[in-house]
Amino acid sequence: MNSDMLVRITRYYRALNRLRAIGLEKVFAHNLSDAAGVSAAVVRKDFSLLEIHGQKRGGYEITDLIDRLSRLLGKGEPQNVIVVGCGRIGKALMHYSGFEPDGIRIVAGFDSDPIVYSDASHPVPVYPMSRLDEMVEALDSKVAIITVPESAAADTAEKLFDAGIRGILNFSPITLKPRPAAPGEIPAVVHNINIALELEQIFYQLQFPDGRKQ
Amino acid sequence: MNSDMLVRITRYYRALNRLRAIGLEKVFAHNLSDAAGVSAAVVRKDFSLLEIHGQKRGGYEITDLIDRLSRLLGKGEPQNVIVVGCGRIGKALMHYSGFEPDGIRIVAGFDSDPIVYSDASHPVPVYPMSRLDEMVEALDSKVAIITVPESAAADTAEKLFDAGIRGILNFSPITLKPRPAAPGEIPAVVHNINIALELEQIFYQLQFPDGRKQ
Repeated sequence: MNSDMLVRITRYYRALNRLRAIGLEKVFAHNLSDAAGVSAAVVRKDFSLLEIHGQKRGGYEITDLIDRLSRLLGKGEPQNVIVVGCGRIGKALMHYSGFEPDGIRIVAGFDSDPIVYSDASHPVPVYPMSRLDEMVEALDSKVAIITVPESAAADTAEKLFDAGIRGILNFSPITLKPRPAAPGEIPAVVHNINIALELEQIFYQLQFPDGRKQ
Repeated sequence: MNSDMLVRITRYYRALNRLRAIGLEKVFAHNLSDAAGVSAAVVRKDFSLLEIHGQKRGGYEITDLIDRLSRLLGKGEPQNVIVVGCGRIGKALMHYSGFEPDGIRIVAGFDSDPIVYSDASHPVPVYPMSRLDEMVEALDSKVAIITVPESAAADTAEKLFDAGIRGILNFSPITLKPRPAAPGEIPAVVHNINIALELEQIFYQLQFPDGRKQ
């Protein structure tokens, strides 16, 4: 499965969970096409590639589709995520409830500042960075969100890989790269979200419409 | 310029501003390759395509490069951004100082909740949604960040386009699309950042390394 198809499948999966939550039992390709921003023909083609077939009278059973996509996406494994850097953005993510429908749980925060990790008002426990190794193992967490200042980001990523973290979602403005995998090891994964860069691209695309991406 | 090259150019531009800030006057392709996550050969090829040539003894003048890339990226225009939805993520963005080096300013927030827009503790003025049209014009703002709850996102985007906003960075979990352009109008631009989707992709890529994107 290529990465574009993966993005679509995860979007279908999210949309299906929402449709089931509001009581629907059956879904049509065009319902899912809206959610994923593609045509209904693409949805049908994706499902056909995955050997998922609709019913004779049209449409798909939502529960059945969720089961199949869930297996395909490797759901069922613990998806415990930690947040490293509990400033404003880190705190906002710890409070965000929108991950739950996807089975993703923010289970802990980490910060180097005693004022931050001694504050009892956080929605999940916040630990000092010195307890990272111990807690990553105890929490069985493989994925971390980095929301530390730019100057601390590269060092934080190294500490996370050392502690056993394999996937990083990086909100700091520097571009982090995954640590090269040891022989036989599953490669680490890093996604960088650079908010300033996204805004700059938007300004650029508005000013020079010919260079815009679609 | 295609979108991959645009991303690299904006990364070079950011890196150059940081290098100048710490007192450097000259830069080499391999300095910039680190910042953009590409090889030095790609940096040289990009500059060659843009007809930017290094000095005889190697390297480029930072000030000169910044001037050229700045013109290329359309800097100098006002880059006033508004934040719509002043919950935890919206507030974190209003407080974030990392946009300034890129010439992007968050100039105002908007919220539908009187408790939020009456609160005087925000770092920029926060207005009720009813004043959107008036303030977007007064602030000469063309780009907005959406940080409203999912249920309000589509409606918010419509209101923003009606008010004259042309570019949207959407943090709500639904995928928003740009409104089709009227004849002769510059097409609107929407970037969607879906944090839950990014995390899901990371989990997927860790579980099925063959399907991962690079």
